[in-house]
Amino acid sequence: MSQFNMPTQVIAHAEREREQFLNDLYEYLAIPSVSAQPEHARDVRHAAVWLSEHLRNIGLTASVMETGGHPVVYAEWKHPEAGKPTVLVYGHYDVQPAEPFELWHSEPFKPTVRDGDIYARGSSDNKGQHLAHIKAVESYLKTTGGLPVNVKFLIEGEEEIGGPNLGAFVAANKELLACDVVMISDSHLLTLDQPTLLYGLRGLLYFEVEARCSAHDLHSGTYGGNVQNPAMALAQILAQLKTDQGVVTVPGFYDDVHVLGPEERAEIARIPQNEDTIKAETGASELFGEPGFNVPERMGARPTLEVNGLWSGYTGPGAKTVLPAIANAKISCRLVPYQDPAKIFEAVSAHMRRLTPPGTTLTFTMLQEGTRGTLIDRHAPQVQAAARAAQSTYGNPPIFTLEGGSIPVVNDFQDVLGKPIVLLGYGLPGDNLHAPDEHYAIACYEKGIEASIRFLAEL
Amino acid sequence: MSQFNMPTQVIAHAEREREQFLNDLYEYLAIPSVSAQPEHARDVRHAAVWLSEHLRNIGLTASVMETGGHPVVYAEWKHPEAGKPTVLVYGHYDVQPAEPFELWHSEPFKPTVRDGDIYARGSSDNKGQHLAHIKAVESYLKTTGGLPVNVKFLIEGEEEIGGPNLGAFVAANKELLACDVVMISDSHLLTLDQPTLLYGLRGLLYFEVEARCSAHDLHSGTYGGNVQNPAMALAQILAQLKTDQGVVTVPGFYDDVHVLGPEERAEIARIPQNEDTIKAETGASELFGEPGFNVPERMGARPTLEVNGLWSGYTGPGAKTVLPAIANAKISCRLVPYQDPAKIFEAVSAHMRRLTPPGTTLTFTMLQEGTRGTLIDRHAPQVQAAARAAQSTYGNPPIFTLEGGSIPVVNDFQDVLGKPIVLLGYGLPGDNLHAPDEHYAIACYEKGIEASIRFLAEL
Repeated sequence: MSQFNMPTQVIAHAEREREQFLNDLYEYLAIPSVSAQPEHARDVRHAAVWLSEHLRNIGLTASVMETGGHPVVYAEWKHPEAGKPTVLVYGHYDVQPAEPFELWHSEPFKPTVRDGDIYARGSSDNKGQHLAHIKAVESYLKTTGGLPVNVKFLIEGEEEIGGPNLGAFVAANKELLACDVVMISDSHLLTLDQPTLLYGLRGLLYFEVEARCSAHDLHSGTYGGNVQNPAMALAQILAQLKTDQGVVTVPGFYDDVHVLGPEERAEIARIPQNEDTIKAETGASELFGEPGFNVPERMGARPTLEVNGLWSGYTGPGAKTVLPAIANAKISCRLVPYQDPAKIFEAVSAHMRRLTPPGTTLTFTMLQEGTRGTLIDRHAPQVQAAARAAQSTYGNPPIFTLEGGSIPVVNDFQDVLGKPIVLLGYGLPGDNLHAPDEHYAIACYEKGIEASIRFLAEL
Repeated sequence: MSQFNMPTQVIAHAEREREQFLNDLYEYLAIPSVSAQPEHARDVRHAAVWLSEHLRNIGLTASVMETGGHPVVYAEWKHPEAGKPTVLVYGHYDVQPAEPFELWHSEPFKPTVRDGDIYARGSSDNKGQHLAHIKAVESYLKTTGGLPVNVKFLIEGEEEIGGPNLGAFVAANKELLACDVVMISDSHLLTLDQPTLLYGLRGLLYFEVEARCSAHDLHSGTYGGNVQNPAMALAQILAQLKTDQGVVTVPGFYDDVHVLGPEERAEIARIPQNEDTIKAETGASELFGEPGFNVPERMGARPTLEVNGLWSGYTGPGAKTVLPAIANAKISCRLVPYQDPAKIFEAVSAHMRRLTPPGTTLTFTMLQEGTRGTLIDRHAPQVQAAARAAQSTYGNPPIFTLEGGSIPVVNDFQDVLGKPIVLLGYGLPGDNLHAPDEHYAIACYEKGIEASIRFLAEL
């Protein structure tokens, strides 16, 4: 069978098995594998066991492997001929909490189809996306008895709680996970006609700061005017971290930032996000950001400094005349290549200390390990193979985009495995990830299976 | 009997009735008249009825008078001779909530004496202070069958919830309350040897502001860098309201401020509060306030602008990468004579609007009616009578002080009755008002009765 015809036949198998493949997804979605909630710990393990057995039934070797937390599912299919390339498919079988339940229009763990969309927690994020890869492998094995390449699956159970154990697992299993390309479908198309390939992700630095001015809360009538107010002190510090145009003022903040080349800027300009789409999505009356950069550049290619939380004093109803003892802020920086999180934290915290007014003591706490931004070589042959597969499947060449958010495991894969990462999303922008009524189009699932079949053939 | 001997004999009566007078206070303190808590509504009324009956038993006419909320107790004793001056004694029979109960070393509504102090909620604030006046009247009536002056009592039940109905009650009962002097004991001595007479109180303006930048909370990775952050916008606005030396920058803020004369500054300089005492009381590492003014001047004679509450975004444990939709602050200004609350609110809110960065909408809400600062004529004969009574009782002439806090009813009395107010405190600075283990020294109660007896004689 030629490379040319093979995917067509395999895709035809997937089309014939449509009902069964959907039923497999429904069965998987019915397991409430909420990693954040201890009362679902048995469900999380159930999902891992279900997945492992499912992979074995298809014809892979598969096992549930322990970590310090929820287990990972590892599976592989080895090509009988040596020298074939190896794909490592990553995904996560855990899901976000479903709360608030009352805002769902059907039960989050009873998958329900309305207007061609499957409503269920985890349908788009991420069970429906990585199961598409599994169904692609199944279609090959059922049709031809084999695959064109070696395939490995690493499906984790802690993505929604920040993946506390996966980095160590990857580092400890470098041989087991060795591959030529990592395939991750945990993002989205623009439309069912317009695929995207992410080639950059922002990193994240997240810390908390406490400003303290007295040992305990004070009466504002008695002490106001003689003792520093930490809410005001913190406001004055924060206010000076950005110009009134939104440029971060921390010395050295932009020193190591990846500079966009003309080709990159031209590619980014194809991303159909602009002031109007952002206004419509957010309800903002006007946009606000670094001068000299357009919307998609600010979203994916420029670092940010944001206050994510702020609290001090009395926040209940009515008036309380308290002079607070402390004020707190949660602050995060989205980082781009080649900013170093530790260096940026040093620069920001040192600058904040310099800005601290009299009578105020600052204390910093890191809330999670910092992650670097990621840049993927768009010209790598593995990425180009994915681009061809996407074009054949969706009808248009993918747009290369930068993502404002972070996928920490991508850094682990790059550091430990040292191979290109393909970030080809199978969901759609309005899938309600992390929100009530999460859904995933049946068409997305079926196109995802097709794209995955074509990708394996293109490698 | 001469004016000279009369108080001595009356004081002797109070000393003989020591045990009974203490038992009366314990009985009063055992009523949990917490005005803020609906479950105590019956106890609040019980306290009013108890007090009214107590005043009748002593020999006054007394009644419980309805208001829109908790009732007031009104009582009077009319001198048979016309032309005698009239004293109106103000106090409040309601108390603060006792929570947190677990921090009390004895039950808040079972008065307990330890080391000469009566531990109970309301002991110092304010039952023990106004009951001293009542016991002074009782001592006169039991000893001499009469009083040297006309006496009226107005004891309210809503002081601890901001006195929402008292202003209207005073305005509606101008004739009933007509007097030559208002006596209020709701403050404190410096020590049992050093009385104070307050001659100024700060007013209060209290409002809330909301800064909004989007319709709902956003993902900071997706929208950070393109949409304004309201926590940062609000910080930038707040930061510009004061210089780094603590001077309020709002145009016009200081325009109408009462300027201290050399005599006033010399008197204020006698107040034994300084950097060291404030540091010891607050745990502040250094003081911070308007240059050119000393600690007591900043506390009582200068206006302030303070952030009393601040909140935005995610304030729970750990990291959440939210770009908040809104940020809120509670802001109050302590006002001094002759600042006008409405004018100051206009000035502050207009200045904040001018400082608002792009993409941000501010909304202001007044949280309570503004009150003006108060200044009392220290040279009024009624105030001087109180000064002589205090000197005879405590052994030293009182220090005239300015108080940083506010007693709104003082303005109502000044406006409606137009007579001098005597603010002679019977408590001590460490009485734990509004806190667990509130207490009141037995010696404070007894000296208070004596001071009140002497004051009535001095008028």
